[in-house]
Amino acid sequence: MKGRKREMHIEISEVGPRDGLQSIESIMPTDAKKAWIAAEYAAGVREIEVGSFVPSYILPQLADTAEVVAYARTLPNLTVAVLVPNARGAEGALAAGAHKITIPLSVSETHSLRNVRRTHQQMLGEARRIAEMIAAVKPEDRPKFEGGLSTAFGCTLEGDVPEAKVLYLAEHLMAAGCDEVSLADTTGYANPAQVKRLFSKLREAVGPKACTGVHLHNTRGLGLANALAALDEGASTLDSSLGGIGGCPFAPGASGNIVTEDLAFMLDAMGYETGIDLEALLKVREIVREAIPGVELYGFTPEAGLPKH
Amino acid sequence: MKGRKREMHIEISEVGPRDGLQSIESIMPTDAKKAWIAAEYAAGVREIEVGSFVPSYILPQLADTAEVVAYARTLPNLTVAVLVPNARGAEGALAAGAHKITIPLSVSETHSLRNVRRTHQQMLGEARRIAEMIAAVKPEDRPKFEGGLSTAFGCTLEGDVPEAKVLYLAEHLMAAGCDEVSLADTTGYANPAQVKRLFSKLREAVGPKACTGVHLHNTRGLGLANALAALDEGASTLDSSLGGIGGCPFAPGASGNIVTEDLAFMLDAMGYETGIDLEALLKVREIVREAIPGVELYGFTPEAGLPKH
Repeated sequence: MKGRKREMHIEISEVGPRDGLQSIESIMPTDAKKAWIAAEYAAGVREIEVGSFVPSYILPQLADTAEVVAYARTLPNLTVAVLVPNARGAEGALAAGAHKITIPLSVSETHSLRNVRRTHQQMLGEARRIAEMIAAVKPEDRPKFEGGLSTAFGCTLEGDVPEAKVLYLAEHLMAAGCDEVSLADTTGYANPAQVKRLFSKLREAVGPKACTGVHLHNTRGLGLANALAALDEGASTLDSSLGGIGGCPFAPGASGNIVTEDLAFMLDAMGYETGIDLEALLKVREIVREAIPGVELYGFTPEAGLPKH
Repeated sequence: MKGRKREMHIEISEVGPRDGLQSIESIMPTDAKKAWIAAEYAAGVREIEVGSFVPSYILPQLADTAEVVAYARTLPNLTVAVLVPNARGAEGALAAGAHKITIPLSVSETHSLRNVRRTHQQMLGEARRIAEMIAAVKPEDRPKFEGGLSTAFGCTLEGDVPEAKVLYLAEHLMAAGCDEVSLADTTGYANPAQVKRLFSKLREAVGPKACTGVHLHNTRGLGLANALAALDEGASTLDSSLGGIGGCPFAPGASGNIVTEDLAFMLDAMGYETGIDLEALLKVREIVREAIPGVELYGFTPEAGLPKH
């Protein structure tokens, strides 16, 4: 097992340009986004969620997503991921040529109504329409379609979220035509025991190939412990954000997303293969810091530096 | 297993009054230390490292340790722990009536020489003398004697630390008369795979009853992930510091010790029994903040608040 782990590849999916930037007020110039993406790509990151196809009056920070996707597509072997809230967003994503399209489905229906003004049934309808649109694309150009189960570990509005509901919605997302489902700890409520339990139940329900990713937050400091729990259950794609930006706009002072730098350090130290050059990754912070100067960047490894070997 | 975990007691050993205070310049007044200890005790913490018996010209912050021990001993069922660098320190600890005495032995001999100006053999000699002193105490008053293997996961001076050396020194500490040995990630170099491997090897070497504790740092953000790894291997006593103070004076801007509040939240959320009232614990920060106003307190859970249930 230890020998196997040493060779196992884990994909770090950088979500900063989407999840990070949508949570802050400053609008990052398109050229800075491109420079950020290019620098993380150069550091070895091979999956980046570069934006979201939502109306620009809602998220002006991401209004340039089509242009950013076009740029990111020029980087060989980079998986260019985007978020879409509905079928209309998916039209934009398909036109731009995104490689991976994620539709979020909040397991807390209260949160779903608040966030995208749609019920579970309406969101499943959107997922079906998107799957049909994707099926019409010629096979070699078809993006991967992921259903992201948000508030899967608890909700600030509804409190506890029943695991049976997560599994029910996951199965319906797969039936609607998703290739994969993933779990998101939108509120930073997850703990490692819960991550292990729910992730393994989900993989059992939809099959391990259809459930490889988790999107975890560091709101209460448990982000990497939760990531470790997911890894133990076979997760192979972990979302994180450079400098931990974004992810949790409702909790001022608390970091939201897992910090890419700390996650990459942990995986590397454990012997997982991420393809990432840690020193190059740490330097990407400068680009982000210059582009959005007022925004706090998190991360322990960048402060402490890499260990001496 | 899950059912068993739900009932398993994990001891959180608060090290802030020793490890925290020795790392900062401000000297906390003795009354504030007592108030801090009393408040954490009231919140349910049942093991506190309250000071260190070192000459006051070296650590003036801890010059009142004997008085603090005397006070802490008045709190029923509290394990009053102290650190001693040598046999002379142990005299003070025994005279004061500490319940648990820890001698640190740095696996990096370079660090040992720099830190306590003693070689491994000299430190093992100190351990033997302390064990003899303890053996002379009448059985019902005998404190527990622990050897703390510091820099066990790597050293800022020596770099990598061979695991065989950790195990060798652990066995010699036990032969010198320690009741227990524990692992300390003094430099924040540990990763979860390493914690699992080394902790399980150590338990195999000295027997699981003689190895229950770990002292982990959060220098690179992996503190709770490392704690989770240790728990998975059977650790039942975890050191941490309120507000994460102390632990890493060499890395400015980086937190040192694991944050007690985040650790207690994680364990509680996972279903472990800690005996700690989280809301009461979060309020202890105010006492510490008032007593050492310039010192930064870390912690994510205190910022984000407890989840809604």
